Amino acid sequence: MAKTNPGRFFEDYTVGEVIRHAVPRTVSGGERALYHALYPARHALYSSDTFARACGLPASPLDDIAAFHVVFGKTVPDISLNALANLGYAEGRWLRPVYPGDTINSTSEVIGVKQNSNAKSGVVWVRTKGHNQRGEVVLDYVRWAMVRKGDVDAPAPRTVIPDLAPALTVEQLVVPEGLDFSDYDFTLAGEPHRWGDYEIGETIDHVDGVTVEEAEHMMATRLWQNTAKVHFDVGARPDGQRLIYGGHVISMARTLSFNGLANAQIVAGLNGGTHANPCYSGDTIKAWSEVLDKAQTAVPGVGALRLRLVATKGGAPFTLKGEDGKYLPHVMLDLDYWVLMPV
Amino acid sequence: MAKTNPGRFFEDYTVGEVIRHAVPRTVSGGERALYHALYPARHALYSSDTFARACGLPASPLDDIAAFHVVFGKTVPDISLNALANLGYAEGRWLRPVYPGDTINSTSEVIGVKQNSNAKSGVVWVRTKGHNQRGEVVLDYVRWAMVRKGDVDAPAPRTVIPDLAPALTVEQLVVPEGLDFSDYDFTLAGEPHRWGDYEIGETIDHVDGVTVEEAEHMMATRLWQNTAKVHFDVGARPDGQRLIYGGHVISMARTLSFNGLANAQIVAGLNGGTHANPCYSGDTIKAWSEVLDKAQTAVPGVGALRLRLVATKGGAPFTLKGEDGKYLPHVMLDLDYWVLMPV
Amino acid sequence: MAKTNPGRFFEDYTVGEVIRHAVPRTVSGGERALYHALYPARHALYSSDTFARACGLPASPLDDIAAFHVVFGKTVPDISLNALANLGYAEGRWLRPVYPGDTINSTSEVIGVKQNSNAKSGVVWVRTKGHNQRGEVVLDYVRWAMVRKGDVDAPAPRTVIPDLAPALTVEQLVVPEGLDFSDYDFTLAGEPHRWGDYEIGETIDHVDGVTVEEAEHMMATRLWQNTAKVHFDVGARPDGQRLIYGGHVISMARTLSFNGLANAQIVAGLNGGTHANPCYSGDTIKAWSEVLDKAQTAVPGVGALRLRLVATKGGAPFTLKGEDGKYLPHVMLDLDYWVLMPV
Repeated sequence: MAKTNPGRFFEDYTVGEVIRHAVPRTVSGGERALYHALYPARHALYSSDTFARACGLPASPLDDIAAFHVVFGKTVPDISLNALANLGYAEGRWLRPVYPGDTINSTSEVIGVKQNSNAKSGVVWVRTKGHNQRGEVVLDYVRWAMVRKGDVDAPAPRTVIPDLAPALTVEQLVVPEGLDFSDYDFTLAGEPHRWGDYEIGETIDHVDGVTVEEAEHMMATRLWQNTAKVHFDVGARPDGQRLIYGGHVISMARTLSFNGLANAQIVAGLNGGTHANPCYSGDTIKAWSEVLDKAQTAVPGVGALRLRLVATKGGAPFTLKGEDGKYLPHVMLDLDYWVLMPV
Repeated sequence: MAKTNPGRFFEDYTVGEVIRHAVPRTVSGGERALYHALYPARHALYSSDTFARACGLPASPLDDIAAFHVVFGKTVPDISLNALANLGYAEGRWLRPVYPGDTINSTSEVIGVKQNSNAKSGVVWVRTKGHNQRGEVVLDYVRWAMVRKGDVDAPAPRTVIPDLAPALTVEQLVVPEGLDFSDYDFTLAGEPHRWGDYEIGETIDHVDGVTVEEAEHMMATRLWQNTAKVHFDVGARPDGQRLIYGGHVISMARTLSFNGLANAQIVAGLNGGTHANPCYSGDTIKAWSEVLDKAQTAVPGVGALRLRLVATKGGAPFTLKGEDGKYLPHVMLDLDYWVLMPV
Repeated sequence: MAKTNPGRFFEDYTVGEVIRHAVPRTVSGGERALYHALYPARHALYSSDTFARACGLPASPLDDIAAFHVVFGKTVPDISLNALANLGYAEGRWLRPVYPGDTINSTSEVIGVKQNSNAKSGVVWVRTKGHNQRGEVVLDYVRWAMVRKGDVDAPAPRTVIPDLAPALTVEQLVVPEGLDFSDYDFTLAGEPHRWGDYEIGETIDHVDGVTVEEAEHMMATRLWQNTAKVHFDVGARPDGQRLIYGGHVISMARTLSFNGLANAQIVAGLNGGTHANPCYSGDTIKAWSEVLDKAQTAVPGVGALRLRLVATKGGAPFTLKGEDGKYLPHVMLDLDYWVLMPV
């Protein structure tokens, strides 16, 4: 019996199964420092203990997207080692901040399967939860991927397609316990724009760009213990290029969006996301945002913006799809998410 | 109104104004580890808690130049986003070590302005202070830069040129509280040369060299939350090259100077500095030093050396300027600073 | 007198001398985070405080190979600055885990010298010990290197060749105090294979590969304060290539071996090792292992495997030497070591 992990194939997933993912991870100030070295991260709540305390939190948490990467990375050996494509995300909720010293592990429940008409692959839906050392859920999201069959003759399972919300409502978002923006210091945060200054339909070109390097995306992807071969080994794909982890593009775009959204401190919900085109070393990532919706939360002073975040490698800002309805080739990421900010 | 930060232009600076810079930063062992990964940093006081305690400090501080970068990085969005050149430094004093757990923020007072004769730009002088979470000043320095005018028709301000000392006196240097070199272990520090072994006029070739890479200088520059586009985006300059942050060259040269100045533990004063020529990925940085002055401090056993630190990318050591009085093309940095070391 | 360190030459070593190496180092969560960013490190005991506590340890230690690098790095300025080749290792024992907050320093005793027949160089054997801040030995190993003579006319010393064991016995391995695998969670660890599932002679192809980059190996090597010029300066070797530190290849191969040896948690002994061929940026490192021996330790539930770990850059797995008895050109590392794992 081979001792290495061959990964799971489409026929290995059964709706209702809960998979406990391996390799729990304790995070520290080291992960924070690396996140700030790998991305232009500047949101004050995630940079400064004193700023976080002034906002009612016990300390500065790990960046929400970094927390997502830690949880996601653990799922790769069980979910996407034989994936042909990562198709989408839905119903992602950050339920509790992750602090230095916390230990995170992940579980996924299979919530849907649908064999493709070619009978060579199928779509698997999982609801993944990240837990801390006290068993509290810190993050909960649905992801679906197209996975190869190992045995093309394996019978097709009964199709189950989960009923997923196109977007979370503001009532579904969780405001971190204790969060209080009444003494919020806009100067220290970097911009004067509060929740009330953003209008639905408004678009923001985040202006800055970063040309990405092989060493950086590999360090980032390894830090989250994501083991997919295509990110590390030039021999893993026919074109000899290392495909950059889609999460690297998410983090780059989100941190670039500081310029124009500096007060969009907390990522609270992930409504959906598409990795529209691949990213490779040498590409220059830029980002633009569109305000899709806005609402007040139940916590006084805390507003929520629903944002589209688009990462590009060229092209004009605010262009997304062609006349054929397909993403333009310079669009790498189209993310739909909720942030919390001072009203 | 655009939400992104356009930066300030020359006409936006008024002598006497104090600018509070954004994004306070809590440092940890993560920043120290990254500093040691990015530079050949080996000064024992900044590497070992036990060594630091044997010298009377409560723990090993963050490297003094790293502390400088943290303070400096915060000033970039307000001071040098529209700068055409970073012209100089003066009167820099490290007043208090920065320890893991400290949160640093920065303020700058505008202390001078002078419009250029072309009326398209001007020179702005600021005195920047870095503060810790107790409000104590950890670093204080003057910097001046040439900044574009946003509106060339804006009237010229009254010229104010600050009166800056060509060099700090030894009396102006601050010895960290509690510092005591009486049990200093020269073997553990790496070299036998004490303050008394250095002579004014002596020159030292630090021998080692480092060929720099894009991923490294970008990680370093981001770690200090320095956001200047030219360091990250190949599209930001006409030549398509990413300009390396001058502070990366300072850190590289200072850490290379360990070989010959291992006991020059503490950087206490910055008299001046010129980024004589740009540095790009692929350049091999080497360094040489010249002893400009020496004096004993008021603290028994603690001596001060005033050093010239020169970073080069080729050329013979100890060559600096041509017959025309201009820096030779291989000279990247000419720094004038004070260090503290055991007598 | 030149202030820089010229390194020691062959004639500078005397059997019996103990060299105290410079620059003690305090490690933190920053070193752990960087180790996980630089290598695909996933052994659960070194990733999670909760997993480590469930195994009877007070917290998650620094990876054993990282501890080796910290100890080794300090020896470079005294042992291998003028080395022509790093020839071998023997009798390496990890005696105590290194935890965040520990301060490590190193000493080496010269235990053998043998001048080469060309009278231009010789072999030096040293026994190096790493100590923590309490003076406890954390690691103990023998290493030998070929070192240039500074003065070719220096007389040959009396030849002393230490008597080194070809391999440690299981009785010589130290099981970390308190280690208890009775509640070991194989799912969280990532694989079901226990000690009893491995057979002597079994070979494992670890499947995954990593294409290495200049920025990564330089950051890794600097992090351990290894200062050998050939790793950093393109001008240090006639071919203009930066030679990758052999320890980088060891760490890459060991972490790649997770896939098939996820439960080989603890590195307890180093029997020997050969850096068979050089590694350069752009090489894709893969790894395979062979089970050389197995034995139970005196601690119930803790088994030991003696493994050959081979790092390659191409070629088929399980090929090692040609008909001439020499390593094949694609073999970079042949390491012989002991691990501890649940029975």
